[in-house]
Amino acid sequence: MSQSTICAISTAAGIGGIAVIRVSGNNAIANVNKIFRACDKNKNLGDIQSNTIIFGRIKNCKNEIIDDALVSVFRAPHSYTGEDTVEISCHGSVYIQQQILKLLIENGCVLAQAGEFTQRAFLNGKMDLSQAEAVADLISSESRAAHMVAMNQMRGKFLNELQNIRQKLVEFASLIELELDFNEEDVEFADRRELGILAINIEKYISKLCKSFDVGNAIKNGIPVAIVGETNVGKSTLLNILLNEERAIVSEIHGTTRDAIEDTTNIGGLMFRFIDTAGIRNTKDKIENMGIERTYNKIEQASIVLWVIDVSQNMENTEKMLPEMLERCKNKKLIIAYNKTDINESALIPNIISNNEIRQISISAKEKLNMELLQNILIETAQIPEIGSNDVIVTNMRHLEALQNAHSSIIRIQNGLKQNIPHDLLALDIRDCIFHIGTITGSITTDEILGNIFSKFCIGK
Amino acid sequence: MSQSTICAISTAAGIGGIAVIRVSGNNAIANVNKIFRACDKNKNLGDIQSNTIIFGRIKNCKNEIIDDALVSVFRAPHSYTGEDTVEISCHGSVYIQQQILKLLIENGCVLAQAGEFTQRAFLNGKMDLSQAEAVADLISSESRAAHMVAMNQMRGKFLNELQNIRQKLVEFASLIELELDFNEEDVEFADRRELGILAINIEKYISKLCKSFDVGNAIKNGIPVAIVGETNVGKSTLLNILLNEERAIVSEIHGTTRDAIEDTTNIGGLMFRFIDTAGIRNTKDKIENMGIERTYNKIEQASIVLWVIDVSQNMENTEKMLPEMLERCKNKKLIIAYNKTDINESALIPNIISNNEIRQISISAKEKLNMELLQNILIETAQIPEIGSNDVIVTNMRHLEALQNAHSSIIRIQNGLKQNIPHDLLALDIRDCIFHIGTITGSITTDEILGNIFSKFCIGK
Repeated sequence: MSQSTICAISTAAGIGGIAVIRVSGNNAIANVNKIFRACDKNKNLGDIQSNTIIFGRIKNCKNEIIDDALVSVFRAPHSYTGEDTVEISCHGSVYIQQQILKLLIENGCVLAQAGEFTQRAFLNGKMDLSQAEAVADLISSESRAAHMVAMNQMRGKFLNELQNIRQKLVEFASLIELELDFNEEDVEFADRRELGILAINIEKYISKLCKSFDVGNAIKNGIPVAIVGETNVGKSTLLNILLNEERAIVSEIHGTTRDAIEDTTNIGGLMFRFIDTAGIRNTKDKIENMGIERTYNKIEQASIVLWVIDVSQNMENTEKMLPEMLERCKNKKLIIAYNKTDINESALIPNIISNNEIRQISISAKEKLNMELLQNILIETAQIPEIGSNDVIVTNMRHLEALQNAHSSIIRIQNGLKQNIPHDLLALDIRDCIFHIGTITGSITTDEILGNIFSKFCIGK
Repeated sequence: MSQSTICAISTAAGIGGIAVIRVSGNNAIANVNKIFRACDKNKNLGDIQSNTIIFGRIKNCKNEIIDDALVSVFRAPHSYTGEDTVEISCHGSVYIQQQILKLLIENGCVLAQAGEFTQRAFLNGKMDLSQAEAVADLISSESRAAHMVAMNQMRGKFLNELQNIRQKLVEFASLIELELDFNEEDVEFADRRELGILAINIEKYISKLCKSFDVGNAIKNGIPVAIVGETNVGKSTLLNILLNEERAIVSEIHGTTRDAIEDTTNIGGLMFRFIDTAGIRNTKDKIENMGIERTYNKIEQASIVLWVIDVSQNMENTEKMLPEMLERCKNKKLIIAYNKTDINESALIPNIISNNEIRQISISAKEKLNMELLQNILIETAQIPEIGSNDVIVTNMRHLEALQNAHSSIIRIQNGLKQNIPHDLLALDIRDCIFHIGTITGSITTDEILGNIFSKFCIGK
């Protein structure tokens, strides 16, 4: 294991009131002590207790003051990484952050890699691998559901059951392998009936986890909604309303304005990812559509299709489009929004199709009419179950692959038991299943797996 | 004074490894205690010592875990604000930051105004007004010089001398006002000669401070450099090189990419603000310039003019422009850069003017030839003195105005002494000077002044 002492800016990039620089490793306290002088001359960083804070000044080698800082000390193993850790809380100037980082590097620290603090926490046994991965998900969570899923994973709900399964399989594998030693005596230490029951339960559990990935993926990356319709039916206005209202709230709370134009938004605690599509344009009688194929491709990526129809116009084109739209959306959830009801208030709302499975709603994007209702319909249609604090949802592609592999092994074990295959082959399948589950918890790991996982973290965590 | 307990996200906006939420006020500990449970059940936020950290969980009213968090407690008066203060260090997800802020507000805190923590520190006597203002400058400092000036101001170097002056003036004013009580007896308690000497010293000191503003302003807002020249002489290439090289370094250290295109850059610890100008275009023989007036206006805003000349072209136009350029730049520092020396290597570099005060340099922006030399010339030309840790530089327009007003009073005092004006008028001038100095230190202040000052802070500081 690396013996280097690492440092990084752990707070978000840019200017803030304060910033925190984290230092972890055997020399964390000694290295920070070289650049820090406590204001209370009786206090010394090297002597203070774990979990205490000391106020003082960061100075460079020329004895110039870089900043006033609060320095927190966490002694091993009582820290996030399990190593001696020091957190320097300084003024949030970019210049000061850089200068302190430079000073730390001059005094024996090295710049941390992405996720290296969490990787060390894993290597030092402070958390298992799936928990470490949940840290990255937690940090990037933007909705209640994504937060809850990541928090449950970090709490080890997922892990405990898998470890339990793994432990039972290890016992059976050992017993069967013991049988191999007595190969010629035809003994059976492992109860095949019990193993069969265990396999059924494991198969059920893993199947459930695999199935949860669809929900997990929607929660983590946003529920994809394609907004389609003819040109000028008000798709953009609608999209802006759906996106902006939430953004305004975010800005208000954080005191900042987010300028970047995004296409995801949080509605009722769920993240929706809106997919913009080119307007379908009808020319003359024949429905000749500009970019309609592209629009249909976008529909492919969506799980919900929001079809916007302008009720102030003739419904002829819409009715012509209907069969094709229904065909394209047959595996999707379709919502039809009749827009511009402000213009055509008196007109009967043309429910163009009588199908109870297709939600139809009258709106006016311009007048923000029925927007809340539309949002509720989106939430209902998404069919994302309310995530409780005990629910385990797989959101990680790496976990899904491992679970699918473990599932294949379990099916082979079940078939093997039915066909009464030789001990050694059965043992191989069990070991295979154990291996795949182990890659999730981190019981089995390689540098490559670790490298892949932690490179996705931000620096400073 | 406000008795509310305030809260804000104090770290930079956005996603980070960790974020810090600061809470300050009488109920800081009690309010945080409502949403926090220590992992060690024997520990309670309300009981722990000042300057200690406790690990636990932030929970909402439904008992759902929002995050694992480190909570630091600072008991009044041993905190930044002088009030009870709690800092919550949580995972840096935007969602989590918002949720914790919401929870705090639900439990009795109010959202802090911009700069309110520092304003409270001032109101509680933890720092004077000029020191509080330095905090904002420190946070926004992006260069060594800006940082040093802000740090000196925060250390109170500026303040101490002003308070000293103010104290001496107060003594004289009191003595002269005492004379007023004995008006008919023609006594003189205040030694006019001593007052005269004091006035001379004060005038010198304040003059020096006022003069330092030019340097201070350049340090704080960047030294304005206008890059001018005909079209296609390579101004943009040069500008990009001057801006980008530094940006690349910044990105490397911070581990992030700054996408925003900026026109300031840090060269050798000084901030330069490059002013882009429209290319001057010559048509036919007559120098008819597109947007030349606009360019000349930009020159007005600059203190350094960098004139880029393409040596691969005929010098005829350049020589025609010369008289006008010299006239326009007579109060500026002019640098002439002969660009594209890569194309015209063999050509004699046409030093178009023999004037030792004008720096002339051959470069190739494309080949990055002599770029370091050009940067050094910029630094030299800027004539910003190296700022030591004892130098006092005025960077704040509010301070400059107050100093200028104080200076006028001092001149009136000096004239009054010469003309032997009546006691009461002399006392008025002295009180006037005391008043203006007091507005800097914060001895004299109004809600309006405070509002103006602290509204420029970021929220959370």
